[in-house]
Amino acid sequence: MNDLNLDRLFNPKSLAMIGASANPRKWGFIILLNILKGNYRGKVYPVNPKEESILGYQCYPKVADIPETVDLVVITTPAKVVPALIDECGMQGIPFGIVVTSDFSESGPEGAALERDVVARARKYGIRLVGPNSMGIFSSKTNLHAKMPPMMPLHGNISMFSQSGNLGVQMLGWGAEEGVGFEKFVSSGNEGDLNCVDYLGYFGNDEDTDVILGYLEGIDPGTDLFPVARKISRKKPIIVFKGGRTDTGGRAAATHTGAMAGESKIFKSALRQAGMLEVKTSQALLDCARAFANCPIPKGNRVGIITRGGGWGVITVDACEENGLIIPPLSEKIIKKMDKFLPKYWSRGNPVDLVATIVQDPYLDCLEILAKWDGIDAVIALGAGRRAPKYSYSRKVTGPQPLVDAIKMVEQYFKNQAKKRDWMLEGIGKLIKQTGKPIIVVSIGPETLHRSNLYEFQVVSYPTPERAVRVLWQMYKYRRFLDSSQAS
Amino acid sequence: MNDLNLDRLFNPKSLAMIGASANPRKWGFIILLNILKGNYRGKVYPVNPKEESILGYQCYPKVADIPETVDLVVITTPAKVVPALIDECGMQGIPFGIVVTSDFSESGPEGAALERDVVARARKYGIRLVGPNSMGIFSSKTNLHAKMPPMMPLHGNISMFSQSGNLGVQMLGWGAEEGVGFEKFVSSGNEGDLNCVDYLGYFGNDEDTDVILGYLEGIDPGTDLFPVARKISRKKPIIVFKGGRTDTGGRAAATHTGAMAGESKIFKSALRQAGMLEVKTSQALLDCARAFANCPIPKGNRVGIITRGGGWGVITVDACEENGLIIPPLSEKIIKKMDKFLPKYWSRGNPVDLVATIVQDPYLDCLEILAKWDGIDAVIALGAGRRAPKYSYSRKVTGPQPLVDAIKMVEQYFKNQAKKRDWMLEGIGKLIKQTGKPIIVVSIGPETLHRSNLYEFQVVSYPTPERAVRVLWQMYKYRRFLDSSQAS
Repeated sequence: MNDLNLDRLFNPKSLAMIGASANPRKWGFIILLNILKGNYRGKVYPVNPKEESILGYQCYPKVADIPETVDLVVITTPAKVVPALIDECGMQGIPFGIVVTSDFSESGPEGAALERDVVARARKYGIRLVGPNSMGIFSSKTNLHAKMPPMMPLHGNISMFSQSGNLGVQMLGWGAEEGVGFEKFVSSGNEGDLNCVDYLGYFGNDEDTDVILGYLEGIDPGTDLFPVARKISRKKPIIVFKGGRTDTGGRAAATHTGAMAGESKIFKSALRQAGMLEVKTSQALLDCARAFANCPIPKGNRVGIITRGGGWGVITVDACEENGLIIPPLSEKIIKKMDKFLPKYWSRGNPVDLVATIVQDPYLDCLEILAKWDGIDAVIALGAGRRAPKYSYSRKVTGPQPLVDAIKMVEQYFKNQAKKRDWMLEGIGKLIKQTGKPIIVVSIGPETLHRSNLYEFQVVSYPTPERAVRVLWQMYKYRRFLDSSQAS
Repeated sequence: MNDLNLDRLFNPKSLAMIGASANPRKWGFIILLNILKGNYRGKVYPVNPKEESILGYQCYPKVADIPETVDLVVITTPAKVVPALIDECGMQGIPFGIVVTSDFSESGPEGAALERDVVARARKYGIRLVGPNSMGIFSSKTNLHAKMPPMMPLHGNISMFSQSGNLGVQMLGWGAEEGVGFEKFVSSGNEGDLNCVDYLGYFGNDEDTDVILGYLEGIDPGTDLFPVARKISRKKPIIVFKGGRTDTGGRAAATHTGAMAGESKIFKSALRQAGMLEVKTSQALLDCARAFANCPIPKGNRVGIITRGGGWGVITVDACEENGLIIPPLSEKIIKKMDKFLPKYWSRGNPVDLVATIVQDPYLDCLEILAKWDGIDAVIALGAGRRAPKYSYSRKVTGPQPLVDAIKMVEQYFKNQAKKRDWMLEGIGKLIKQTGKPIIVVSIGPETLHRSNLYEFQVVSYPTPERAVRVLWQMYKYRRFLDSSQAS
């Protein structure tokens, strides 16, 4: 059951949109529009007995009228007509359906009965269903945007299943803003038929997926989540964010999906044993996804820190120590190597504090020495990816000509620095390849300061050292799992 | 000693720049440029015996040649000439000096002796010194940018002292990117003379300062930090970020400033008793500053949550519960009031889940009911400040005309939504004033999505619910201090 092949679900050759609507206030219109706007590579058949065409595409009265057997139907009709539609699809031999329609088990006993009916009919014909109450799926290979929100995710090597549609799709949108790309996504809805273990198993076997993300609220106690996950964790990281960790949170989860919240402590320990990495915040989910998708896994927990300012070095050390990462003192040999590049009064320690300098920049030289040192497994590079500060946003200066000239000169200097930044990031990218160690860049400030061109150099960056440390800590946890007997 | 008047230091009528340089590679050039570029409201006298003019301004050979007694000197000369300069300034009756020059106690015993000499001479003449090894100060009232980095902070009601110059000034720059404005800032350097307790005491009495931030690494055991802080905490919040919390972090701190790191556990408890709010990350320092500078303090820990999606509500509840905030169930009366605006199948609980709707938006109506309910002290408003998604960043669509028209229509819809957002934020701002309760907005995604125009409505927003909860938790801690006997 966990080697289910969902290829025709995620990359259908053709699909039918049942409940396609010409009314822009209906999801049957919005989802069809998203599919078409997303340049889906297959053929789309809108189904609606009341329309001749929608959005310029021929409309079919019913599924049986479509001239081929589609791989997938997307259903957005009212709940009460869904059972009959499943029969129709079943008789056509359609293998997969996404039931976006809500008002099933999440809305009470009546809806739950209807959901059981739908699932029973689907089983009879062998149709596998996503949902009901799903926000849909996304797949980069066929440009399939069969989902409610109109945002277009970036393409990448991360796949995600989410027991909250809203949280999941917002992760896709947030990822697009931060340069984190996705391969496949599914909002699992009420999981009347296919559940998150099925998606996990499929992503585990999927060659295009390198990192798996999951948002979980409730897990059936009889599930084989943990054995399935343990097998996959050996091959690729599974990063999980659990909602409903607290009593009140668990009750809130129960009201908006059919699922019961998992027992938190038992759940946590089972996750760990299965090699799954639990993050505690929504930001951490995206941060970790980005690092695991781009960086090598460190061999151990010894971290080298390089900084342009003492205070930032100090708080990075604190964050490392508080998370079980070690900051080894530099060896005499390494200190001697760095002496060549640094003023005589440099700190001679880890963190390597470059001391404030205006013109010379020994950053990359010192970083290379640090990264190649066999005394550390990973590097946090503070202030490496800095962009030009917004020097020009002060009021216009009126003053003597030499002052005006000097300001222009300094502005030019910062522009040149910004160019140098690409050269540095390229250098860091090379060092990562050469050493096989993760070098995590930290550039203080909002995300916008360092999203622009980091990825072309395979470098990841975070706006605070604490976020970089949190990511390294998760990578180290994954290393320990890989090295442990559980992984063998 | 803690009612020191530092007005002439932060807002000098005139200042001399000793070590002013025509060489762009010297700090004596950069700082002078920053002062001039910042449009400092007083008069600046560059001092340098080797130059006739710098940046178009007349240069004076020595302090004694300046035609008036300046309030402040900024010194960037080499360390060894500083003692003699202090004598010169002292004989002119100058009250304040900022010693930017490094190579004092932070660099070893020799530097420490030189620092003692400088301080002894300053005491003799009654000159009060910032530094040595300071990155300078900033003050919004006189547009004084007597500091090393060229960035221009936003003006606001927050003042900050920092035992790390680099961390401090980057907070100013980061604040400028995120819309957090500062009133005064000082990099305290080695604290040879004036120390952070002096600055704290002054900011405490300063009418223009509503919120105080401090970055601390080491505190002299004999300091009166805590009694001073306790007195100030009754009037305004003091938010502290402590570097050197761990053993290794403490050692790193000791190498880059002269100070010894404080004993962490004792320190933490003393901070708490003094009503100071300790944050654990650099991001939290800025997040809390923004909320305390803009929002009313909640009367208790009961939180109402309103959300557009169930999953986000669940993780917000989890974060609240994990931080001692309570999510009370809605009263029957409140449920009835909301029934009017929500579909029949709404959750009838806290979080108030608005359920996905395309056209109608009951958000502000439900938020008003929630905020005015006497069962809660604060509101977290998820998804209130959302901007239009980047709908248009997918590939250009070629297709039938009805499809092209529909895409245009949806794009227009999102543009209209973006306009409606201002109307909503204005409504939230009014509700905050009416209820006296903080309403914290969360708009998922990078900072850039919600910085733009929030502040004109006195609304604060964070990109994740966890960050909003962290801020509310600190506000609640502050409320408990204000209500406790320690504050009376």
